[in-house]
Amino acid sequence: MADTVWPGCAKSLKGVILDLCGVLYDSGEGDGAAIPGSIEAVKKLKESDLQLRFCTNETQATREKFVAKLQRLGFDISVSEVFPPAPAAIAVLKERGLRPHLLVHDGLLDEFDSVDKTNPNCVVIGDAAENFSYHNMNEAFRVLIGLEKPVLFSLGQGRYYKETDGLKLDVGVYMKALEYACDLKAEVIGKPSQTFFQSVLNDMGLKPHEALMIGDDLVNDVGGAQRCGMKGVQVRTGKYRPSDERHPTVTADGTVDNLARAVELILDQRGGVRGEG
Amino acid sequence: MADTVWPGCAKSLKGVILDLCGVLYDSGEGDGAAIPGSIEAVKKLKESDLQLRFCTNETQATREKFVAKLQRLGFDISVSEVFPPAPAAIAVLKERGLRPHLLVHDGLLDEFDSVDKTNPNCVVIGDAAENFSYHNMNEAFRVLIGLEKPVLFSLGQGRYYKETDGLKLDVGVYMKALEYACDLKAEVIGKPSQTFFQSVLNDMGLKPHEALMIGDDLVNDVGGAQRCGMKGVQVRTGKYRPSDERHPTVTADGTVDNLARAVELILDQRGGVRGEG
Repeated sequence: MADTVWPGCAKSLKGVILDLCGVLYDSGEGDGAAIPGSIEAVKKLKESDLQLRFCTNETQATREKFVAKLQRLGFDISVSEVFPPAPAAIAVLKERGLRPHLLVHDGLLDEFDSVDKTNPNCVVIGDAAENFSYHNMNEAFRVLIGLEKPVLFSLGQGRYYKETDGLKLDVGVYMKALEYACDLKAEVIGKPSQTFFQSVLNDMGLKPHEALMIGDDLVNDVGGAQRCGMKGVQVRTGKYRPSDERHPTVTADGTVDNLARAVELILDQRGGVRGEG
Repeated sequence: MADTVWPGCAKSLKGVILDLCGVLYDSGEGDGAAIPGSIEAVKKLKESDLQLRFCTNETQATREKFVAKLQRLGFDISVSEVFPPAPAAIAVLKERGLRPHLLVHDGLLDEFDSVDKTNPNCVVIGDAAENFSYHNMNEAFRVLIGLEKPVLFSLGQGRYYKETDGLKLDVGVYMKALEYACDLKAEVIGKPSQTFFQSVLNDMGLKPHEALMIGDDLVNDVGGAQRCGMKGVQVRTGKYRPSDERHPTVTADGTVDNLARAVELILDQRGGVRGEG
C-alpha cells in the first residue's frame, strides 16, 4: 500500500505545484528578494522526473512581466508554467459576456486590453494595493450598487501577504468590504477555488492524488489543494505564522522550514524509489 | 387599549429620537444641505410636548463642531441633545484602560485629545473617508495583528451614506475588511448597538415603548431601535432605497416621504389626543 503520509507520500507523486510569493521570493521594493535556497530548489525539481507548475494569486502585473521578474531574480521559469487568476478571469468574462469595471493594480491593466470595458456590468478586483483608495473603492461600489444583479469577481481572497517592509492587506479584505457594502457574495477566481486548482492539474494531465501543493498560505494554498484531493505542505516562510500550526480547520500534511527543505525531503524519498526500481 | 400601529401609536409617545444625516440634511461639500421641510419639522417637535434627542453615527467631526454645522444649516439643536459614538467610545476606552490607535476622520481627532494613545493596545475606526487609504488600513491592520488579543472598536457599522455628490462607503465596510484580515469580531459603538440606544432613552428618562426612532437607515436606525423595544419609522430621504420596503428581516413600523411628513402625522395624532383630553 502506498505511503499516504508526508514525506513518504512523495514516493508516489507525479507533479508538484508551487506557490510563488512567500515560497520562492518575498515581494517588496523593485523585484523583491529570492528566499535563500529557493532558486536551487526549483532547479532540482526541474531536473527530477516530477512535473512542475506554479500556481499564484499574483495580480500586480501581467503574466509576462511577472515571469520576467522571477527570471531576473534567478528562477528558471517560463510563462506557460505559471497560472495566475487574471487569464482565468478573462476567460470567464468572455464566456459570460460581462464587461468589467476594474479595480486592479496599474501593472495588471494591460492583461485586460482585449476585454470590452464600456458600460460595465460587473466589477473585477485584484490586489490593487495603493489603488485601494477611498475614491476607487467608492467608484467600484457605485458600479455594483447601480446594477440590477451586481456581480463581483475577486482575483483571490487572501487576507494579507508579506513584503520586504512588512505585512500588507490583500484583495480578500477589500472583497469582504464590497460584499458587505452591496450585500452580495463575490465569485473568487484563483486559489482556493477548486476550478482554479483543477485547471493546473488538467494542464499536467494528473489526478489530484498524484500532485502536491507547497505554499505559505495555510488556507488558500494548503487548504484549497487539500479540498481538491491533493496533499498540501506549508513552508515557514512568507506569511507563515506559528499559529497556523494550530489552525482550527486546516491542518497541513507537512510543515517545513522552507522550500529548499521541502524539495530535499521529496527528492530523498524519491531517491529511495529509484534505488528500489 | 393603546393604538400600537403607526401613526396611531404616536398618541402615546413621550419622546422622539431623530437620526441626523439623511433625515435632517444631506452631507456633502461644505456643510451639506438641509432636506426641505426638516428645519421647520424640528422646530414643530421642539414646540410640542414631546422630548427630542438626536442619535447619530456621525464621526467626521467633534460633537461641538458637528452641532455648530447643524446650527449653521438652520437647525435649533444644542450639543447636549446630540448623541454620537465618539464620546461613548472614549468612556469605554477609559473604563477598560485601553489605548487606541485611531483610524478616524481628521475632524474627529480633537475629541480624543484626553485619551492616552501611546503604545496602542486596540484600534478605533470611525468614518475616516479619505483617510481610509491603503497605507492607513495597513497601519491599523499591523497594530491589530501584532496584539496578542486584538480589539477593534467600530464607531457604527453603516454600509454607505449619501452625500450631495453620491453614495459613499461608511465605516462598517472597513470594519468588515479588518475583521476578515485579522479573523476577529469588532465591537460596535453607535447604532444599532442596544447599549447606545439605551443611553439616549436613559437621558430622556423614558421606557423604549414610549419613544419613536426616525431614520433613513433601515437596519441601523429602524431595526436597531425596534430591537430595543422602540417603534422605528423610515423616511424616504438620504440613503433610503425602494428595496428597503421589501427587506428580508427588517420591516419599518412606518415609511414616510420625509421628516416633515413624519412630524405632520405625529402631531396630527397628538392633536387628536389633546382635542379628546
